[in-house]
Amino acid sequence: MRARRKTEKRVDKRSRQQDDPVSPRLRDSATTRLPHLTHVDAHGRVQMVDVSDKPATLRQAVARGEVRMTPQALGKIKANAIAKGDVLAVAHVAAVMAAKRTDELIPLAHPLPLTGVDVSFVLKEEASTVEIAAVVSTVAPTGVEMEALAAVSAAALTIYDMCKAVDRGMTIERIRLVSKIGGRSGDYRRAGEL
Amino acid sequence: MRARRKTEKRVDKRSRQQDDPVSPRLRDSATTRLPHLTHVDAHGRVQMVDVSDKPATLRQAVARGEVRMTPQALGKIKANAIAKGDVLAVAHVAAVMAAKRTDELIPLAHPLPLTGVDVSFVLKEEASTVEIAAVVSTVAPTGVEMEALAAVSAAALTIYDMCKAVDRGMTIERIRLVSKIGGRSGDYRRAGEL
Amino acid sequence: MRARRKTEKRVDKRSRQQDDPVSPRLRDSATTRLPHLTHVDAHGRVQMVDVSDKPATLRQAVARGEVRMTPQALGKIKANAIAKGDVLAVAHVAAVMAAKRTDELIPLAHPLPLTGVDVSFVLKEEASTVEIAAVVSTVAPTGVEMEALAAVSAAALTIYDMCKAVDRGMTIERIRLVSKIGGRSGDYRRAGEL
Amino acid sequence: MRARRKTEKRVDKRSRQQDDPVSPRLRDSATTRLPHLTHVDAHGRVQMVDVSDKPATLRQAVARGEVRMTPQALGKIKANAIAKGDVLAVAHVAAVMAAKRTDELIPLAHPLPLTGVDVSFVLKEEASTVEIAAVVSTVAPTGVEMEALAAVSAAALTIYDMCKAVDRGMTIERIRLVSKIGGRSGDYRRAGEL
Amino acid sequence: MRARRKTEKRVDKRSRQQDDPVSPRLRDSATTRLPHLTHVDAHGRVQMVDVSDKPATLRQAVARGEVRMTPQALGKIKANAIAKGDVLAVAHVAAVMAAKRTDELIPLAHPLPLTGVDVSFVLKEEASTVEIAAVVSTVAPTGVEMEALAAVSAAALTIYDMCKAVDRGMTIERIRLVSKIGGRSGDYRRAGEL
Amino acid sequence: MRARRKTEKRVDKRSRQQDDPVSPRLRDSATTRLPHLTHVDAHGRVQMVDVSDKPATLRQAVARGEVRMTPQALGKIKANAIAKGDVLAVAHVAAVMAAKRTDELIPLAHPLPLTGVDVSFVLKEEASTVEIAAVVSTVAPTGVEMEALAAVSAAALTIYDMCKAVDRGMTIERIRLVSKIGGRSGDYRRAGEL
Repeated sequence: MRARRKTEKRVDKRSRQQDDPVSPRLRDSATTRLPHLTHVDAHGRVQMVDVSDKPATLRQAVARGEVRMTPQALGKIKANAIAKGDVLAVAHVAAVMAAKRTDELIPLAHPLPLTGVDVSFVLKEEASTVEIAAVVSTVAPTGVEMEALAAVSAAALTIYDMCKAVDRGMTIERIRLVSKIGGRSGDYRRAGEL
Repeated sequence: MRARRKTEKRVDKRSRQQDDPVSPRLRDSATTRLPHLTHVDAHGRVQMVDVSDKPATLRQAVARGEVRMTPQALGKIKANAIAKGDVLAVAHVAAVMAAKRTDELIPLAHPLPLTGVDVSFVLKEEASTVEIAAVVSTVAPTGVEMEALAAVSAAALTIYDMCKAVDRGMTIERIRLVSKIGGRSGDYRRAGEL
Repeated sequence: MRARRKTEKRVDKRSRQQDDPVSPRLRDSATTRLPHLTHVDAHGRVQMVDVSDKPATLRQAVARGEVRMTPQALGKIKANAIAKGDVLAVAHVAAVMAAKRTDELIPLAHPLPLTGVDVSFVLKEEASTVEIAAVVSTVAPTGVEMEALAAVSAAALTIYDMCKAVDRGMTIERIRLVSKIGGRSGDYRRAGEL
Repeated sequence: MRARRKTEKRVDKRSRQQDDPVSPRLRDSATTRLPHLTHVDAHGRVQMVDVSDKPATLRQAVARGEVRMTPQALGKIKANAIAKGDVLAVAHVAAVMAAKRTDELIPLAHPLPLTGVDVSFVLKEEASTVEIAAVVSTVAPTGVEMEALAAVSAAALTIYDMCKAVDRGMTIERIRLVSKIGGRSGDYRRAGEL
Repeated sequence: MRARRKTEKRVDKRSRQQDDPVSPRLRDSATTRLPHLTHVDAHGRVQMVDVSDKPATLRQAVARGEVRMTPQALGKIKANAIAKGDVLAVAHVAAVMAAKRTDELIPLAHPLPLTGVDVSFVLKEEASTVEIAAVVSTVAPTGVEMEALAAVSAAALTIYDMCKAVDRGMTIERIRLVSKIGGRSGDYRRAGEL
Repeated sequence: MRARRKTEKRVDKRSRQQDDPVSPRLRDSATTRLPHLTHVDAHGRVQMVDVSDKPATLRQAVARGEVRMTPQALGKIKANAIAKGDVLAVAHVAAVMAAKRTDELIPLAHPLPLTGVDVSFVLKEEASTVEIAAVVSTVAPTGVEMEALAAVSAAALTIYDMCKAVDRGMTIERIRLVSKIGGRSGDYRRAGEL
């Protein structure tokens, strides 16, 4: 009961002191002792936003991107004829592993206990691209958009790495969030994506 | 053509299954946009299985293994006379740290917030082995079998590393899951283990 | 002989304790099979303490420390004139990232899903120091004291790294826990800190 | 069939080459003991290519990419008015750190002792993009193309992360290798890049 | 008292030894200032052995091991019918990545710039095992035995992870060094291995 | 021959353009395309300094620091009576492992192939401190001061972690560089250290 009261007080105080992430007791100590903080902020303040108050709920995000390459390179991937090995298998694994380590790659991303990562590829011969899609899930107080984007990025980089002896001119294109569900900010679906 | 048919079948099955973790909206987008997925699957599809729907419950696992070595090497460990340092102390730490990073070592393992890791060693003079046991705990939607096995493996490798100047012929033997509790698949106890 | 007696005593105590996190079946197997454990313990037993039974509650910790340097070095930080770049910005990022990886740096620290990290600096010209403060939050079964201390340490080391061409004699001073809230052991506030 | 022919040719070439890094004894053992390897290769062989014979020489690579966003988001970056902190400072650090860990992100990339990483950003108001460039150097037997591309990718992802509250529709565009020097395959300069 | 005596002896020995890697000036400071070191040593001294004086030369190591499983599980691997994905492809990648991070897994292993990692699998139906072999290369002052053993261990753990739904009773067997070349201690070839 | 000529040209141009790390051809592209760089620099430019031109030579550094605690806590360490395990053994391992990962902890530190790490502790009863010393070696183009300081910091944090149940008021004190050898900037020895 008392705990709940304290929480509410903190929330109230929060709404007044717009973005102070520290609870009253801690904040007192912090603000008294660190009077010049604002000046320091002027060059370089960064913050991993406090999400302690948000409930852990199901979050999912879908990201996509593509690697544009020569038809020759695409043909080799399709024929599994790239010397370094099975390109899509390695890119798959790279994507899953990158998703799990997103918070080490992106400085202010929260560490999240991912509950699922699913990655898929489509070889688009007409466009001469490999399309990459990643679906990431968690049950956490914040979303997994960055995890899905990191998975797609790692897959794209891995495809580049494995095929660069064949085509150094490949480009990684249009890495983007396609949709997300869960969280206070509501669901999102990118316009123009089916 | 056959590939597409298989995809559709998968979708059908999914829409019947209750435990589909992807929301309808996300699933539609995924299946509509990625029609050639199945062909790709033929070489290289991998997946970190979605456990978003499973509740976080207490999970524990016990794994064991052993390092077989010369009696001379075993004697040096017992006497704490290995030049590089206290073999079992270092192996202990290696095991705990490896357990915590299992999801970086094993590509499709879920990241889990371990709540306990306990490692122990028995020097078996008759068999000329060091027996290693690890008990790992978590409160999570999936189990910690891999964490326990990774802890034992890291301990075994560390023992090898610290003693290899004395005995290069050591072998790591019988790393295995001994028991686990928690989770939908029920408890497990390896036959023949006390 | 004495070793074995001690083991048995531990087992007895365990079977009486209600909060034993190991299920009876697992415990039996562990104690029956590993009777010589205590002898091994004599040199090198370590353990990531089991917190499976503790509820996940809000935890916060504040740590502080300082880097003492020449007035010249401090002046260069203030003027953002250090050749390697914006010292405090880089130290900020280093602190947040170190907090997230505390369990990889400190062997027996539990992996925790941090929900917030806030770092701040004060340039103290009279004392010729940079004061560092870190506030870390989580909702977890154990506290974040180590995460806050690791954040301050990483910030201090980064300041050293970026300024060492100007002042190799800098010292890192008084890294300490200032306060913590949450957890069974109750709140803590360091005496003499405002 | 063609695959097998190529394998045999490689073996032939190897037995003629003096600089074969695998000793005859090791090679024999490998080929004698692993007769079914070719079948296994059919699904899933991967390899971190052996560069033991290549001398360590200066290698550099330049990569570029861009993040497209709304003018509003770009304006906030320029004014350093993003709530999470100084976007470009954090992206800078993320890029440098990602470059150093490229071999953990990209499965078959060689670990390389980077000797320099320089990252820069241009805010392009007309195009409403942030342009990212990374120059990476090493003295090593293989090149740093992937390190430069990974640095650009990490910077782009970090920009996305820090600005996503303002513009969820940002896209990461045209990540590409611009030039490289050093190495047996010669220098490379992307057509159409100044 | 005895502890102190031992310290003095060690210091004496050091000043006589030619291969002391610490420069006289550094050594003096170390020994003068840290007189009680030996007592501490009695429980817990560890050391990453100094190899600064050794030249960087070609080193290679071959390790092997196997995973024993039910014929049913082996059949599913062979048919690439394991639900989580292509077992051998994922195990391949896991092995390469683990080799590169061996120094993070094994506390006293030196960080080494690996120049090659090659992993292969043989499905042995008669024995109902998957045989794993890893060849690791570097040009460095110390060898890659641990890297080869770590690669085999990671592959074995990954195979376990991917097949555990089919056969929880799998065991990891006989992880061992098969041969190594390079280094002061000479070449090694395990007796009884072809 | 041509390569050498090119190198010389680069060096010449370098000495004129003081600190541009990019070779002429690369630099041209960089400067033409990134005209606003200086403005961006104003808030947030950071750089991992280019050391490609520096030869790999022996580098060593010694760092020290201490953990101040209650006599009771110190007594427990001495008696190896801390519940979590052997404090100094775990701190030893933590220090060695942190030294190896310094470049992941400190954003602009170069990745270096450490050739030796030696850590030692002295229990100072009169001062009620644990003194920590770390000697780190490498053969590289840049020094290991940060690695030595990181090792001491990790040891200190680990001591705190293992003893915090006994004494939450411990402070980490005077982490400092004591001496270094090797490198263009010459040897260094801290005044007042024996």
